[in-house]
Order: sequence, then structure tokens, then C-alpha cells
Amino acid sequence: MPFVRIFLSPGFDESAARLIADGVHDGVVQAIGVPAEDRFQVVTRHESGDMIWDHTFLDVARSDRGVFVNITLAVGRDDDQKRELYAAIVRNVTTRAVVRPQDVLIVLTETSRANWSFGNGVAHYAPAQAPQ
Amino acid sequence: MPFVRIFLSPGFDESAARLIADGVHDGVVQAIGVPAEDRFQVVTRHESGDMIWDHTFLDVARSDRGVFVNITLAVGRDDDQKRELYAAIVRNVTTRAVVRPQDVLIVLTETSRANWSFGNGVAHYAPAQAPQ
Amino acid sequence: MPFVRIFLSPGFDESAARLIADGVHDGVVQAIGVPAEDRFQVVTRHESGDMIWDHTFLDVARSDRGVFVNITLAVGRDDDQKRELYAAIVRNVTTRAVVRPQDVLIVLTETSRANWSFGNGVAHYAPAQAPQ
Repeated sequence: MPFVRIFLSPGFDESAARLIADGVHDGVVQAIGVPAEDRFQVVTRHESGDMIWDHTFLDVARSDRGVFVNITLAVGRDDDQKRELYAAIVRNVTTRAVVRPQDVLIVLTETSRANWSFGNGVAHYAPAQAPQ
Repeated sequence: MPFVRIFLSPGFDESAARLIADGVHDGVVQAIGVPAEDRFQVVTRHESGDMIWDHTFLDVARSDRGVFVNITLAVGRDDDQKRELYAAIVRNVTTRAVVRPQDVLIVLTETSRANWSFGNGVAHYAPAQAPQ
Repeated sequence: MPFVRIFLSPGFDESAARLIADGVHDGVVQAIGVPAEDRFQVVTRHESGDMIWDHTFLDVARSDRGVFVNITLAVGRDDDQKRELYAAIVRNVTTRAVVRPQDVLIVLTETSRANWSFGNGVAHYAPAQAPQ
């Protein structure tokens, strides 16, 4: 169910982009029980100046290699699951690509299960004939 | 009120992009009672590898021509309206452009009516002088 | 905490993009009490036809120089703060760059405080050891 947007600052090539995308997806699968097949991602690489971030906010020492991850997912995960999700994503991307843990911003956007159609114009998690 | 993001995989040219954008908008107008003039869309076309999706999840047979649609809209539509919205969007885009119904992912993000300014720095649906 | 997306139509160069990004950020700081260091933005400039908007909706006379601003922020701001936010953003961007007030669309997406990790895979506003 997650719809994942990954924004990469300059310095990440196509190969790194794929490794990061894989790491984010595996983190989602590992931490919050999403099926491995439930993968929908858009990765964009941006020029210098198009991604802007503070390098010290909350005493996190960020570099010039920022990675922003915005995950739209179904409501229902508790704070423990979210904490595990952040940890898993950062663990994965930092071990697979040249990413520093400090440089990974993650933002979740939660939305209801009726808010998804995975193809064919069907509300897969709110079907018309099923009891609501 | 909808703010619509459309992500297109390789293989869609500028003309197809416009037909798809039109089809999504008309679906919103037809299904959930949005005025025809209430249109704000960003369409982006992505290179191979920048959009990643599973080709079998939920037994939907997706091809290499993925179309992701993320609609931010006001809260308040019920499940029937959402189902009709998905159906209308897919009906429109598949009849107007070379899009397979299986290839259309739709995700809704709902947000309150006070969360919109349509210009001039005004909260059009939560004006200061009106009773809250 | 805001994660800000700014979409610019053709006609804005890199320098204008930066001035607009600064104006949006300063508006957030001025209006809703976000620390100046809490800045995470992605600015994208789009070709003609990739941003589509109505030029008259709600009797706002929009031109061809559209600016869309989508701010993901923590829940908790009231309508007064949101109104001030819209006004501050539009005041800033129109005085610093060649932007008309009518051309600025702003959409807020609110998300809980546990939904943010600002680096290191930590839920900064929902730490594991703190009382929830």
C-alpha cells in the first residue's frame, strides 16, 4: 500500500538511486508488514539548489548528500512500528549505498484504506460488495 | 479543490500526457462533484528506472506503462464516491490514451477545507470573517 | 517539521526559484512558529503543459506564471494560523520575485508528529524512551 517518493540530491547516480529505492522498500517490508509485492515508488534526482535543507536542525549534522523519503501509507501503524520503519530504512540505505544516516529525512503521510486503487479502477480495500 | 499529481513512465509523449491529465480531471468532475474550473495538476514524465512498481500485486497484471495518480482533495467523500472516482478516471484515461486499466495506480490524500488557498493568500474555504 | 514542495511553471529561473523558496520558508517561520532551521524543501521547475491550472476558478485571475506550494506539516495549527501562513507566503514571494498574488496555490497536508524522522532513523518527536 505504500506509495513512496524518494528525492535525491546531486551525487547519486542511477545505480545508487536503485539501491536506495530497494533499501527503502525492504525497510517497509521488514518493519511494518507490507507484502514484498506491494511496491510503488517514484525516485527523482535533483540538481544542486533544487533540494534545500538545514544542515544542523535538531543537532543532526547533515551533509550535501540529502535523501528525502515521503511515504504515503495506510493508517494504523503505531509509534513502535514507525520507529522501526525509520530505523530499518536508514539501516538499509546506509549499508547499501553511500548515504550517511544523518542525511535521510523521512516523512509519513497516512491515508485511509479506501483511498487506494491498485489498478482497474477498483477500490481494492473497500470493495463495493463487501460489508464496510 | 483537488491538487493532482500524475506520474508517467516512459512511452507517454506530451500529447498522451495531456489526454491522461484531461481524463483524470474529467473523472474528478464526473464522480465527486468538483467544478470543472477546479483544476490544478502537475504531470511529470519519468525515465526508465525512476518509477518502480510490482507487476502482479493483488493479481493485477501490470505492464511497463505505469501511470500513478495522487490526488490531494478535501475530506468528505464516502466510499461510494471514491469507488466511482477510481472507475471514472480509469474509464477516461483508457479510452482516450494508450493506457491499460491495470496500469493505473490511484492514491487519495484527504485534507481539510481550511488547508487550501487558491490565490491571493486567502483561505477560500475558511475565511476570517465567516463563522467557523 | 514542514516538508515543502514548490512547483514552478516556465519563466522562473534558478535565481527566482531560490527567492520563492526563501519566501515560502520565511512565511512558515513567521506565521506558524517553526524554527528557522526547520527547513526541508524541494523545488521543481516544469515545462509548459506539465502544470495545468484553471485561470478563473473562484474568481481569481491567474496568469501563465503559476506557483504551486504543497506543505506537509504537523497537525495542530488552527485556522487563524493557516490564514496567516497563506498571507505571509504570498506577501513574501510577491515582494521578492516576479510572482502575482493570484498565481500562488497553497495546499497543506497535515500529518502527526510521530510521522517524522529528521535523520539517523530516529522518530525525533516520538522517541522510544519518552512518555507518549
